[in-house]
Amino acid sequence: MILELVILNVRAGESPAFEAAFDEARAIISSIPGFDHLELQRCLETPDRYALLVGWDTLEAHTEGFRGSPEFEQWKALLHHFYEPFPTVEHYEPLFQVARPA
Amino acid sequence: MILELVILNVRAGESPAFEAAFDEARAIISSIPGFDHLELQRCLETPDRYALLVGWDTLEAHTEGFRGSPEFEQWKALLHHFYEPFPTVEHYEPLFQVARPA
Repeated sequence: MILELVILNVRAGESPAFEAAFDEARAIISSIPGFDHLELQRCLETPDRYALLVGWDTLEAHTEGFRGSPEFEQWKALLHHFYEPFPTVEHYEPLFQVARPA
Repeated sequence: MILELVILNVRAGESPAFEAAFDEARAIISSIPGFDHLELQRCLETPDRYALLVGWDTLEAHTEGFRGSPEFEQWKALLHHFYEPFPTVEHYEPLFQVARPA
């Protein structure tokens, strides 16, 4: 499982509109082959900041499959205009996982 | 559930030693009340970069419970000398979650 991790900074005051747009956009990405799961989380310390975490079966499912799809054009049109600055996307692979002791 | 999210940049060449130290340190944090889970992930694009994701029952379980504990002193001694620059810790709360379609 590859983790796509992106810190999103939304233009000041546009967070309610961004959240509404994301609510619509999330159905787009879930239909892509190799998509596993997504979380959008809101930052407690910094207003208008979010963390987007997406699990993909492979790196290419994101970088080639999703980004090369017609669905990505819809995703971009819905969401990309909210970001300032435009975010850097990174990918991570699991190294250690620890669960709550039973 | 509160997500602690930290991007860790390790001094060049020290990643093997960092990973060995983290393997030791992970037992320390899992004993803290309010700890739920932890993931350490390795960045595919940038050498010596990691993402630390920790789930806590509450913000205070991390900021007061863990940081005020004797275990945190051990954690710091094992890990903090690897980081350059010293990382910024942020906390996030869930907004949207999407699972793979059944």
